[in-house]
Parts: sequence; structure tokens; C-alpha cells
Amino acid sequence: MSRIDEMNRILRTLQSGTPEIEAAAVISEDGLVIASALPQHIEEVRVAGMSATLLSLGTRAATELGRGALEQVLIRGARGYVVMMTAAPGTLLLVLSTQDAKLGLIFLDMKRAAAELGKVL
Amino acid sequence: MSRIDEMNRILRTLQSGTPEIEAAAVISEDGLVIASALPQHIEEVRVAGMSATLLSLGTRAATELGRGALEQVLIRGARGYVVMMTAAPGTLLLVLSTQDAKLGLIFLDMKRAAAELGKVL
Repeated sequence: MSRIDEMNRILRTLQSGTPEIEAAAVISEDGLVIASALPQHIEEVRVAGMSATLLSLGTRAATELGRGALEQVLIRGARGYVVMMTAAPGTLLLVLSTQDAKLGLIFLDMKRAAAELGKVL
Repeated sequence: MSRIDEMNRILRTLQSGTPEIEAAAVISEDGLVIASALPQHIEEVRVAGMSATLLSLGTRAATELGRGALEQVLIRGARGYVVMMTAAPGTLLLVLSTQDAKLGLIFLDMKRAAAELGKVL
């Protein structure tokens, strides 16, 4: 199995294991999508662009407000969550979930997926 | 007690009730500080500017990624959290905490403070 296939498998497992997770993607620190499991109505290019912006702003906010190196960004909207966390060095795991998601479970599943991705990347 | 005094009291209660909360501020949607309880080493102007940026980016991310209207932004760094949530309409409550903070407790205390602020604003 290629590295991309392996990453896609990890993302699909993450997505199917928690019904509240609508989309998952591995993104490089430059905001390029490495692998993704996105539903049809969510465009990859939009996710990538927004991840890059969130990453750069999150890094700036964490540093300027004395919180150290960025580890995670969470955006909660009325219709769900955007969660981004560092996976392997230089890469990020992004998840979009519905508003019914239990955050603790999402964080746990994402940490596990990030650790698995770390072995592949 | 003036509205500002009342807000300062709510912020100080929030800050003193949870030792992990280092700073708290009420910010307008334009990124102007309305009231704050900040330690000396954290500059108000820096907090205000960063809040305005986080707010505009968070709103864009939530909308573009189909998550609806923005309700909360969380940034986790190696040395702690930045949490921002809507308080009264048009205002935000921002909290800086150490890395030892229990997120669930911070969210709970912030929601209570936001509800109290809503009565004053």
C-alpha cells in the first residue's frame, strides 16, 4: 500500500468511526493538501486555503499572546466545528464536524489518527 | 457601580476563580477593548489587535467551511490556550490560560461570565 493510500485509509477510518466527522484532511504547513476524505460539497482547494490561513494566524496569535508554539486551532460555528492539530512534524490534521460532535471524542480520535499518520509521513 | 466597574468585577471574578486563567477581556466586534483584567506583561493593545484578527478570520473560516455563524475560537499553544467566545451581541469574551487549564472548566466559567456580561452590556 502506498503512503497516500495508507493516509487515505487512516482518514476514512477517522471519518467513518465518528459519524459527526464530515471531512478530514492532512495538510502541509504551506497549506497544501497531502491527503483528504472530503464529502462532495466541500472543495479541497477551499479547505487547503483556509487551513493555511488558520495556521499562520494561529501561530501568530499563540506567539504574540505568549502561548508558545501552535498545537491546535478550534473554530466553533452554529453548525459545527473546524479542528486543526499538528500531526507529523510539518503537517496538520484538519477535521470538520457537525454541531452534535462531542469535542473530547473528536480530540481523542484525532490524536490517534495523528499518531498513525506520523508513522506513515 | 458603573457598567465598566461591573464588567471589571465579572472579569476579575472569572480570573481569580480559576488560577489557570491569566487574563480576561471584553472586546467589541471591531477589536476594541471594552474592559480587561490583564497581567502587567500582557499589553492591552496587542490583545485587542489579535482578537480582532482572530474574530475576522474565525468568521471567514466558519462561513467558508459551512460551519455557520462564529461562536468560539480556541488556539492551543505549547504554553497555554487563547479562548474567545461571543458574550452579548456585538461583544466577545477573551481568555488566556496556562497549559494546565481544564478546557471544560474554562468553557463553563466563560459561559457563566458571558451570561453575566450580557446583562450589563
